[in-house]
Amino acid sequence: MGTIAFEDLSPGTMIDLGEIQVDREEMLAFNQRFDPQPFHLDEDAAKRSVLGGLCASGWFTVCLWMRTYVETVLADSTSQGSPGGRDLSWPAPVFPGDLLRMRLEVLGARRSRSRPGLGLVEIAGSALRGDDYVLRMTFTGMFSTRG
Amino acid sequence: MGTIAFEDLSPGTMIDLGEIQVDREEMLAFNQRFDPQPFHLDEDAAKRSVLGGLCASGWFTVCLWMRTYVETVLADSTSQGSPGGRDLSWPAPVFPGDLLRMRLEVLGARRSRSRPGLGLVEIAGSALRGDDYVLRMTFTGMFSTRG
Repeated sequence: MGTIAFEDLSPGTMIDLGEIQVDREEMLAFNQRFDPQPFHLDEDAAKRSVLGGLCASGWFTVCLWMRTYVETVLADSTSQGSPGGRDLSWPAPVFPGDLLRMRLEVLGARRSRSRPGLGLVEIAGSALRGDDYVLRMTFTGMFSTRG
Repeated sequence: MGTIAFEDLSPGTMIDLGEIQVDREEMLAFNQRFDPQPFHLDEDAAKRSVLGGLCASGWFTVCLWMRTYVETVLADSTSQGSPGGRDLSWPAPVFPGDLLRMRLEVLGARRSRSRPGLGLVEIAGSALRGDDYVLRMTFTGMFSTRG
């Protein structure tokens, strides 16, 4: 049983998930495998696109956020997965070498009516480059309660 | 300039993106790298979780959907990326060996007011195992117009 349970994730809780630098090779390998659009693979094609330069698949940014969330919170928690989310935005493209600060904020929490011992936590996740958001998303996390 | 442009993605358009089988090794490598929660890595831990068995990170399912979307549509299109989405759900866990049918439906389309030559397309993407949805999401795709 993990240390961080439903009861620890009350509305208003903010957690700094740390920083991660976008590794060019890892980004390109991800883009190639899952999102091989020209502006995610080719510098010249990317410069001609509205994105302005070779950039990360938005899903890669999400995955980097997820990695820091698991390392910082979920690895030592009662997490039981997620049924989904309701907002996801990529306000700006992410480039190799970018230093991203990952954060989360708990927006809401309630006990499940259908599953005793389980709580649903509304979480806003974000990634910032300096003061600019490059990722914002809201999703529901399921966590076992302590009781 | 790709063949599939904004004008081809009118509301009501449905596209079968084909089938993909969940490869256990690729799934585990993804889970390990981006979402190393116990129920995504360890068979016994997964059986004790509400998920019921070793299963894919929801982001892996999203990435498999994205791969089929790029291969079937975006690779030969005027795609200019995506600013985000508004709904994302994983109605059921995905297991190794599952055969997933990927689909998309165009929900809406409008020309950008701020960027002439660009159109915004509302797309519902889904993955089904048999008759059951395992992924549903709605997002906006940006496509250049032909004009």
